[in-house]
Amino acid sequence: MKLSEKTLSSELLYEGKIINLYRDTVELENHTNAMREVVHHPGGVSIVALTEDEQVYMVRQFRYPYHKVILEIPAGKLSPGEDPLECGKRELEEETGMTAKQYENLGDFYPSVGYVDEVIYCYLATGLTPTQQHLDEDEFLDVELIPLKTLYQMVLSGEIQDGKTQSAILKVYCKRYGNSRIN
Amino acid sequence: MKLSEKTLSSELLYEGKIINLYRDTVELENHTNAMREVVHHPGGVSIVALTEDEQVYMVRQFRYPYHKVILEIPAGKLSPGEDPLECGKRELEEETGMTAKQYENLGDFYPSVGYVDEVIYCYLATGLTPTQQHLDEDEFLDVELIPLKTLYQMVLSGEIQDGKTQSAILKVYCKRYGNSRIN
Repeated sequence: MKLSEKTLSSELLYEGKIINLYRDTVELENHTNAMREVVHHPGGVSIVALTEDEQVYMVRQFRYPYHKVILEIPAGKLSPGEDPLECGKRELEEETGMTAKQYENLGDFYPSVGYVDEVIYCYLATGLTPTQQHLDEDEFLDVELIPLKTLYQMVLSGEIQDGKTQSAILKVYCKRYGNSRIN
Repeated sequence: MKLSEKTLSSELLYEGKIINLYRDTVELENHTNAMREVVHHPGGVSIVALTEDEQVYMVRQFRYPYHKVILEIPAGKLSPGEDPLECGKRELEEETGMTAKQYENLGDFYPSVGYVDEVIYCYLATGLTPTQQHLDEDEFLDVELIPLKTLYQMVLSGEIQDGKTQSAILKVYCKRYGNSRIN
């Protein structure tokens, strides 16, 4: 089946601080029209920062949409025109006070493909050395080190609910321990 | 650190077909106020439907926010008051024409915790038997069977970009092959 949708019109409904909201009219495969709501987000970066003894820098943050504290890998929003890797380096330093010698691309993560256009770029950071944490004025979070093996079990048991963290932790674990033993 | 944010006011900016948009004012830890944009979504369900010979039913769909065809596990939106597992059974049958004897909960997936409140409930479905695919009138997708091991490699190599698919495929793979060999 040829799968595509042709944009007929696009209306900007809301221009916000983090997101913009569009309502578009599209032509479907069967030549009927449909409405598409699209939340535009500038994109983000998330980082698995792994120490030499296989621990990961994690952050606990109150996430307002869920009205609770959520355990996540460090992450941040891209500034306009910013290179994803540079953003990742900046966010890691801001949130955890660490810099890394090596960065490995873990691939892109699309959070919710039906109505959001955000891309989260994911990296593994190794060769960590401490510098200085410097959070934004309105940023409140706790940093903690958790063993990669513990996080792997927490993802499989359902204890970690943040999607980008589930995917990135499993990717790193499988890349380090999986290839030689699983296949 | 005590981490919380107190809602001072909430404004419904847009009431849509799939999503609603709210702009709230909150009080932060340091007693200053901040604005929070929240996209409300009713929640969704995604299903890893695994055959006895370890293949997975996948769907390819044009996803308008990314303007391209994306490879995903079957998924759908919760109807008001609908039980997530019932929704999963319905979506699996609608999209792939299969029913399952067993369902295993793979845990919840929060797509993008900064500005969306969606929860995607994930299940592993086994004991599959064919019934009849019945897509919605405005739903266009291709179904294909792909071996779980191939999907695992596609996630690790970055070929699969959909977040819920990355997480669910790795969870199923690690639960089936990981526990006995990795730990």
